[in-house]
Amino acid sequence: MTSIEADPTVPVIRITREFRATPAQLLRAHTDPELFARWVGPDGMHTRIDHWDARTGGSYRYVSVGGNDEYAFRGCFHDIRADRIVQTFTYEAEPDGVALETLWFEDLGTGRTRLRAQSLLDTFEGRDAWLRSGMDTGVNDGYTKLERLLSHGAL
Amino acid sequence: MTSIEADPTVPVIRITREFRATPAQLLRAHTDPELFARWVGPDGMHTRIDHWDARTGGSYRYVSVGGNDEYAFRGCFHDIRADRIVQTFTYEAEPDGVALETLWFEDLGTGRTRLRAQSLLDTFEGRDAWLRSGMDTGVNDGYTKLERLLSHGAL
Repeated sequence: MTSIEADPTVPVIRITREFRATPAQLLRAHTDPELFARWVGPDGMHTRIDHWDARTGGSYRYVSVGGNDEYAFRGCFHDIRADRIVQTFTYEAEPDGVALETLWFEDLGTGRTRLRAQSLLDTFEGRDAWLRSGMDTGVNDGYTKLERLLSHGAL
Repeated sequence: MTSIEADPTVPVIRITREFRATPAQLLRAHTDPELFARWVGPDGMHTRIDHWDARTGGSYRYVSVGGNDEYAFRGCFHDIRADRIVQTFTYEAEPDGVALETLWFEDLGTGRTRLRAQSLLDTFEGRDAWLRSGMDTGVNDGYTKLERLLSHGAL
């Protein structure tokens, strides 16, 4: 249901998934910290929001917690619009690695929206290491949780 | 004196220039808004700082003014360290284009520092259009002004 693809010509990961949601609901799912914390990341982990200022020019930091393990992520919001978010993303244990992420919310009508997400890195090695890290589990689990929130009317 | 190169394998522009300066001076030149406005951009233009919060998680907006022409640029600061700045960059007339910029200040000893700057875009077309836009004039003029400020003890 979720497509995760490596671009052959540029160091980009592309993720596509359709949701039974409006663009406004998907925007809220990515900008409201309490909603975001309820779906992001793999099953078995929970998310603690450390800092969250989801507006153009703002920034964020959150921590994924599972048992004794903590994984912190942070970045800044370059642009937040009704149909698009552009933000930076760093896993703090590898502070020199920075991805530029773009999310598009494409209204398909009849209450469905296509989420397209793109992560741009500056090397193919960095991109491929990220793909091999098990990110697909987190992405798939997260979107399944988001779908559940949507179907329960939480957004 | 300034090297401006297109990477053959990733959509990156790399700029390299050595300055008679310390890393701390180059950091200041890129983070102090009054200093930044005094050197950035081509000769014959001046720079108006509209918003400036040069810290990790902050953001900026400035306008290059020449006669009746105004060119606005904005972005967010992903990371500001003693030897590295990571920030986003958009020319507002083309709001969908976003570059992820990294600047490194490499201490060469004997009072010299190598500035390496990298602009990462998500397509080769976008990268090449930016290279053809005359950006080299702005880069070269700007760094010459920065060198003059350094030699006059302004930093």
